[in-house]
Amino acid sequence: MTVPKFKKFKIEAYKPGKSNIAKIRNIIKLSANESALGVSPRVKKILQNKKLLISKYPDGKAKNLRKEISKKFKCDFERIICGAGSDEIIQMICQLYLKPSDEVIVPQYSFLMYRIYAQIVGAKVVFSKEKNFKVSINEIIKKVTRKTKLVFIANPNNPTGTYLTRAELIDLRKKLNKNILLVLDDAYFEYMKNKDYKSGLDLFKNKDNVVVIRTFSKIYGLASLRVGWGHGPKKIISAMNLIRPPFNVNQVAQMAAIEALKDRKFINNSVKHNIREANKVRNALQKLKILSNEVTANFLLLNFDRCKFSANYIFNKLQSKGIILRSTEDGYNIKNKLRLTIGSTKENMRFITTIKAIFN
Amino acid sequence: MTVPKFKKFKIEAYKPGKSNIAKIRNIIKLSANESALGVSPRVKKILQNKKLLISKYPDGKAKNLRKEISKKFKCDFERIICGAGSDEIIQMICQLYLKPSDEVIVPQYSFLMYRIYAQIVGAKVVFSKEKNFKVSINEIIKKVTRKTKLVFIANPNNPTGTYLTRAELIDLRKKLNKNILLVLDDAYFEYMKNKDYKSGLDLFKNKDNVVVIRTFSKIYGLASLRVGWGHGPKKIISAMNLIRPPFNVNQVAQMAAIEALKDRKFINNSVKHNIREANKVRNALQKLKILSNEVTANFLLLNFDRCKFSANYIFNKLQSKGIILRSTEDGYNIKNKLRLTIGSTKENMRFITTIKAIFN
Repeated sequence: MTVPKFKKFKIEAYKPGKSNIAKIRNIIKLSANESALGVSPRVKKILQNKKLLISKYPDGKAKNLRKEISKKFKCDFERIICGAGSDEIIQMICQLYLKPSDEVIVPQYSFLMYRIYAQIVGAKVVFSKEKNFKVSINEIIKKVTRKTKLVFIANPNNPTGTYLTRAELIDLRKKLNKNILLVLDDAYFEYMKNKDYKSGLDLFKNKDNVVVIRTFSKIYGLASLRVGWGHGPKKIISAMNLIRPPFNVNQVAQMAAIEALKDRKFINNSVKHNIREANKVRNALQKLKILSNEVTANFLLLNFDRCKFSANYIFNKLQSKGIILRSTEDGYNIKNKLRLTIGSTKENMRFITTIKAIFN
Repeated sequence: MTVPKFKKFKIEAYKPGKSNIAKIRNIIKLSANESALGVSPRVKKILQNKKLLISKYPDGKAKNLRKEISKKFKCDFERIICGAGSDEIIQMICQLYLKPSDEVIVPQYSFLMYRIYAQIVGAKVVFSKEKNFKVSINEIIKKVTRKTKLVFIANPNNPTGTYLTRAELIDLRKKLNKNILLVLDDAYFEYMKNKDYKSGLDLFKNKDNVVVIRTFSKIYGLASLRVGWGHGPKKIISAMNLIRPPFNVNQVAQMAAIEALKDRKFINNSVKHNIREANKVRNALQKLKILSNEVTANFLLLNFDRCKFSANYIFNKLQSKGIILRSTEDGYNIKNKLRLTIGSTKENMRFITTIKAIFN
C-alpha cells in the first residue's frame, strides 16, 4: 500500500530555538526574543477571569481587540485584521497575492517565515543582498521584475538588529513600482528609541500599497497565546477576511491582548530595561572582542570575527552551562555569529558571568 | 493611488452563527454545536496555573499533548499532528495535496471549511449528491475523475446529523481509487453510541490513504482555545509538519487539552446528557410536527416540511425571544430546515417552552 502523492515543497522548515537541554535544570533561554519582563500583571489577572466561556467559539472578527488597537494606535478599525500571531498575517498575505509564477523579494538575512509562507504557495523567493548586514534599498530595486508582487521587510530587522531610517523607508516606497505591495513588519518597533527611526504604521498609515504587521509576542509578552495583527487598505483587509480561518484568534489571546495594550507602564518599563540591559551586555561583550550592532530591538547579533573563540564554540559552551542562544547558521545562513536576546537583569548577569568564565 | 492587485477567490466566506442579539440579554446560543456542559473542572483549574509562562513561545511540536492523545486513543505518537482547531488540519491537507487543476469531492451538505480551504488553494470542489440528507457512496464514486485528489467526509455529518455505518465506510475506502486520500472528520464521534457506527480512527488507524481529523471544540468544550488534531501515515504527517506554522497551537490550549483528555467522567456525563436531552427535545418537537434525524451527535437537523410554520418564521420568532439556532440556508443551502444544538438541561427547557408558546 502506498501513500497518495502530495506536492513537493522546497522548504527548509523553521526550527524554533531550543528551550530544553537534557539533564540541565535552571535553563536560560535567550534564543527567541521573548519579553524580558514577562507579561503585564493586568494580563495575568484576566486569565483568572471566571467569566471566560472556554466552551464557546471566540469572536472571529476580534471586534473588541480591534477597537482597542484602533484607539491605541489611532488607526481605522476597518483597516485592522487580527491573526494567530503575526505569522498568520504573513501567511494570509502570501495566499492572497501569490501564484506559482510570482516573485517575492526578501532581504538576504530576514525573518524566515516570509520565505516559508511564500514557498508554500509555490512562489519564487528572490533574495536581495544586504550591506554590512543592513537591508539595501538599491539591492531590492535591482531585483524587481514584472513578476514581483511583494517585498517583505522587518524594521528593525531580525536577526541582524539593523534598521532602515524613516528617510530610507520613504525612499524605498517611492522607488518601488506602485503595484508592488510593501509589507513592513513592525515586530520590534516599541523598543526603538533611535531618532531617525519611524514605525511602518506611523509612516504609511494611509498608503494603498503598504501592509504593516505587528505582534503581541515580543514586548507585550504574549508569545504563548499567539496573537498579532495587520494594518492595510480596506480592500486588502476585506480580501484577507475572506480567506481568514473563521475563528483564527483564540479568546484568551484576544482578552489578554486587550489588557496588554492598556498597561503603558509595563511597556515603558520594558523599553527602559531593554536599553539599559542591552548596553550593559554589549559593553561586557566588547571587552571579550565580541562585537555587535548598536542597540535597537531586544536582541543583539554577536560577531565573533575578532574574538579568539568561534561562535560555535561559545554556543556549545554556553549551552553546556544551561544558556541557550540562537545559532544564525541554521536557516539564516550567517556564519560565526549568534543572536542573543536581552533577558531579565538576573539572566543577563548570569550570562555575562558565564561567558566571562569561558574566557578565563 | 490604487491597491496592488490580488488573486480573486470564488469563496462564500464562512459566517459563524450569531452570539448576540441587539437589546436582548440572557441569550441562549444553540447554533454552534458547542459543549452543553461547558468544560471539565480540571481544565478550569489548569488555567489558574501560575507556572504558565505566557511570554514564552509554545511547544511547536505539541509533544506532551501528542503523547497524551497517543496514550488515550492507542495510536502512534509519530502519526499525530496538532492544529489550531481541526480547521488548521483541513487547511494543511489542502495546501499539501491540491494544485489549481486538482479536484476535491465533498458531499453536497457538508462542513463548509472543506470547500473553503480547497478553494483558497484554487482547487475545484465537486459536490456529490446525498440521499435523504445522507452521504451516498455511489454518488461519491460517480464523481471521481483522474484529477480527484481528496474526498472529505464528516462522520457523523454536520449539519445533517446522519452517518455512514462501519460497513459503508469500509466499502467506500475499497471502491475509491487507492491514490485518492480519504479525509474522515471524527468531530462528533464521542457522542455516537449507535451500534453500527465506528470512528474513522478505529477503522483506519493503519491505512496509508486515510487521514482522520479530531477536535477539542465539541465534547471537550475547548472551542474558545482552538485545538484539534490529525492522524495519518507518517509520510503525510511529516510533510504537514514542513508547512505547519512553527507555533501553531497556543500553550494554554495544549495544557487544557491534556487535562480534558484525562477527565473521563466529564466525557461520559456529556454523552449521557446528550442522549437523554436530545431525545427529550426531539420528542417535544415531533408533537409540533417538526421532524428530525435520529439522535446521533449533539445537534438535530429540524425539518419543517410538515409543520404549519416555516423554518424561517420559527428562526426569527426564537431569535426575538433570545434563542439562536443555525440557519442552514446560508452556506449549506438547505431549505426549510434549522440546525439545533443540544444545550444544557436548563437551555433545552427554555427552548421547548418558548417554541411551544409560539405554536399556541
